Amino acid sequence: MLAAYYEGPGAVSVGEATDVPPGPGEVQIAVAYTGICGTDLHVLHGAMEGRVAHHSVLGHEMSGRLVALGPGVTGWSVGDPVTVMPLRWCGTCPACLAGNSHVCQNLDFVGLDSPGSLQQRWTVPADLLVRLPAGLPLDRAALVEPTAVAVHDVRRGEVSAGEPVLVVGAGPIGLLIACVAREEGADVTLVEVDAQRRALAGRLGFAVLDPTACAVPEEVERRTAGAGASVAFEVSGSQPGLDAALASVAVRGRLVVVAIHPPHRDVDLRRVFWRELTVHGARVYRRTDFERAVELIAGGVVPAAELISRVVPLTSAEDAFQALESGTGVMKVLVRSGDDD
Amino acid sequence: MLAAYYEGPGAVSVGEATDVPPGPGEVQIAVAYTGICGTDLHVLHGAMEGRVAHHSVLGHEMSGRLVALGPGVTGWSVGDPVTVMPLRWCGTCPACLAGNSHVCQNLDFVGLDSPGSLQQRWTVPADLLVRLPAGLPLDRAALVEPTAVAVHDVRRGEVSAGEPVLVVGAGPIGLLIACVAREEGADVTLVEVDAQRRALAGRLGFAVLDPTACAVPEEVERRTAGAGASVAFEVSGSQPGLDAALASVAVRGRLVVVAIHPPHRDVDLRRVFWRELTVHGARVYRRTDFERAVELIAGGVVPAAELISRVVPLTSAEDAFQALESGTGVMKVLVRSGDDD
Repeated sequence: MLAAYYEGPGAVSVGEATDVPPGPGEVQIAVAYTGICGTDLHVLHGAMEGRVAHHSVLGHEMSGRLVALGPGVTGWSVGDPVTVMPLRWCGTCPACLAGNSHVCQNLDFVGLDSPGSLQQRWTVPADLLVRLPAGLPLDRAALVEPTAVAVHDVRRGEVSAGEPVLVVGAGPIGLLIACVAREEGADVTLVEVDAQRRALAGRLGFAVLDPTACAVPEEVERRTAGAGASVAFEVSGSQPGLDAALASVAVRGRLVVVAIHPPHRDVDLRRVFWRELTVHGARVYRRTDFERAVELIAGGVVPAAELISRVVPLTSAEDAFQALESGTGVMKVLVRSGDDD
Repeated sequence: MLAAYYEGPGAVSVGEATDVPPGPGEVQIAVAYTGICGTDLHVLHGAMEGRVAHHSVLGHEMSGRLVALGPGVTGWSVGDPVTVMPLRWCGTCPACLAGNSHVCQNLDFVGLDSPGSLQQRWTVPADLLVRLPAGLPLDRAALVEPTAVAVHDVRRGEVSAGEPVLVVGAGPIGLLIACVAREEGADVTLVEVDAQRRALAGRLGFAVLDPTACAVPEEVERRTAGAGASVAFEVSGSQPGLDAALASVAVRGRLVVVAIHPPHRDVDLRRVFWRELTVHGARVYRRTDFERAVELIAGGVVPAAELISRVVPLTSAEDAFQALESGTGVMKVLVRSGDDD
């Protein structure tokens, strides 16, 4: 069988891989689709060399069907459509013991710290499986993982019905957060520098601001009768995006830090104090977030099909990374591992 | 009667003041004691020229007895011992309408935005009064306001019994936060650069770290079996203090920003994301915080007498500011307005 390998900064290869029969408690999945995300791109840029080995298999946003069950696996059948929640925790660190295993201090993020789904058949522990509804097309199901991120972010932001919500950054995660928050009854406005992404957000029915054409905090204040946004999501990963988000939050509002900011940022803590703001970091998801994500995609709340820009075969996996790099209008690019669906 | 006036940067005068008879809904208080706080010192340094007028009367941490009731005031009697919650809100801004009047967008902080208690008799709206128990010495009662700040901060931090708590900065507010958190059952460690303040914290029974002699995050990690502090309070107002606090917080822990940081700060938002931290701004107090502060001082939980470094008469008000400026070991300096107690 075939797999796509990360071979070091800038290099992806496709070659033979060993079929791993499932051991006790494991299952083997015929991978259907794998989405490429910003973190994968980060790896390819060489930004995670200390963590991701060369000749490793990436991929953690996926869908597929079970092809083999290892000894002791119950409750699953060959042919079942599944996705995988790619987190393995230690169960013994202080975070795990406090009930926060999703941010385990020794977390194994499958697809980065251990082999991922950019291959034809993938063997994983059965307890990572998440069931998919029979009728859900598997290309759409590859968006469950990023949707689970968005569900988790909206829960961290404690978004409630009627609240004005600002999402800074209208890439895939920003748009998914917007969709999930709208489903909670929030009044969502997106902020995005790229015209094509603004156009897509507009087609999905969202109010969108161009931060190069207006002063975002003043515009938010105007639209909220002087209050500001109850919740702002920082999904741009940029200093200007962070500034706009922080300056737009209402008294006692919440700022959710979704994007990764590797450099330290310049933060107006006086405003955090003065307005009694709350800043929440939000990372990955819990199982309940994954299950809710499946519902939202299956129910059409998340317009998964409209977010898929392109699908490439596994043999051309490198093209998927290149497509993401090149096109500002590109949202999700999927790699197809088989002929399923 | 006499009052102490802020006359511009570095200048305090004492002179005659007009006795203001209480109007409808107002009361007049014979002021007993007024504490000088960091914000007052900030005014004297000229840092709040845009907000505080020259020849204005400062003072918002006070105690006294009622000497006159205006028309329509009920439930109070001349002679009652009182303190004042020095907040006047508009009642109509978005923050007030959302139930957060203590951080009203048009807040009048009495003693800064309107005349304060550094005078012999002070006339204020009766609805700002907070009742004091008959037996509570009025010098100790002057610490109710900063204790209410500490109560509010500990509530913002959602401190619960058994949690390891770090307080960075052992000035008056830091020590009061430590006392309130200990009363909640927390295991409190203070961090302080000044040796005299460290000694006082030690005498009050707290564990204390000298950040010039140890790496605070590593020490906290060691003392918490690798977890970190469940809650850290940033009360130093400094970049190194902020860094130590942020680096010491456990996964899913809370950082409470108590100090005012006028310059923007360099913040490791990646850590906020990675550990799913929550940062809460905490400012002033609600009435319930004030009432709890009265209980804590009256019950001896807050060792008010040990925090009072010096008492000076109103005629020497300038000395109170100078004492605070000069002595690193100085905690609370009170100005005595009358002969009461």
